[in-house]
Amino acid sequence: MSYSIVPLQRLTEQLERLPGIGRKSAARLAFHLLYLPDKDAKAFTEALQDAREKIHECPICCNLTDVEPCPLCGDDRRDKTTICVVEDPRDVLAIERTREYSGLYHVLHGTISPMDGRGPDQLRVKELLRRLEDETVTEVIMATDPTVEGDYTAMYLSRLLKPLNIKVTRLAYGIPVGGDLEYADEVTLSRSLEGRNEL
Amino acid sequence: MSYSIVPLQRLTEQLERLPGIGRKSAARLAFHLLYLPDKDAKAFTEALQDAREKIHECPICCNLTDVEPCPLCGDDRRDKTTICVVEDPRDVLAIERTREYSGLYHVLHGTISPMDGRGPDQLRVKELLRRLEDETVTEVIMATDPTVEGDYTAMYLSRLLKPLNIKVTRLAYGIPVGGDLEYADEVTLSRSLEGRNEL
Repeated sequence: MSYSIVPLQRLTEQLERLPGIGRKSAARLAFHLLYLPDKDAKAFTEALQDAREKIHECPICCNLTDVEPCPLCGDDRRDKTTICVVEDPRDVLAIERTREYSGLYHVLHGTISPMDGRGPDQLRVKELLRRLEDETVTEVIMATDPTVEGDYTAMYLSRLLKPLNIKVTRLAYGIPVGGDLEYADEVTLSRSLEGRNEL
Repeated sequence: MSYSIVPLQRLTEQLERLPGIGRKSAARLAFHLLYLPDKDAKAFTEALQDAREKIHECPICCNLTDVEPCPLCGDDRRDKTTICVVEDPRDVLAIERTREYSGLYHVLHGTISPMDGRGPDQLRVKELLRRLEDETVTEVIMATDPTVEGDYTAMYLSRLLKPLNIKVTRLAYGIPVGGDLEYADEVTLSRSLEGRNEL
């Protein structure tokens, strides 16, 4: 390696490890962070430390939160009879953006994936079962991703819940709104056919 | 604003202020930084603080450095008779990568830009003149960007240096190597014509 400014090089390398940041973006970000006024640099590191210190899993739904219970579990206006099971906290944010769902959530923090050595014990499955004990919940919506692992996880959980006499549903998968039939992949199109509704 | 995890939201907003990072990338980066093992998060913030604390301007060439003088000014093998004047420290790195230049540098930290209220006093011009006093330097290469401001700055400095009896040169501008005449813009092509060499 030829001439380099060591601490700057180290910062660039750290930035390059972030997802979606290549060598050139990392260099640009490093210079930006270097030239940032002290006030802004402080706000940046504080936001990072603050988020890492204060955010933990909600003891009920396992979603990320800085309060206990999380604002969703603690909200009396939410429908306590329905739980929507998702893979990770980003999915909760996505569903909340629709403003169509008013029930509760349960965040698994992953999927069952034997290939990667992840079984049900690595997910928040026990926590889900505990929530179903008092029989308040009448429906569990499986909203895991429509991938091999997501489907498998939904199937596994639905079998686990069957004896509990709880309605288990799965999100509908099909052609995205505004999508084009011609460009839809075969699997999505088959799912869309299977899940067809009467008009 | 609907449901959000406040510290995570704040971190996302901080990341969104970085150059080239949009809303979705910021959210992805925020989750990544949140889930980072403690060791890696510490390495990240330390690299940032370290770079900001240790890096300052070299008292001679005004390039960024963590040692004094910088490795380039302190290197006895470099040709002390030539100074290459650039706009910012990234330009030094770019020229060093060519391995074609063995002289010294001078970093202006910007260009003269009356539109933005930046005159010569905001640049490291006094520092450049001080370096020319002992008459070691025989050539100054103007390597500012081929933009209106870069050209103007090079012109301004060359007039300033003329009375000192120093050879002032400017980088050649023309069609990039591997480029296509057909797609070259008119200004680049005119510059390339003006700067033509005998074969």
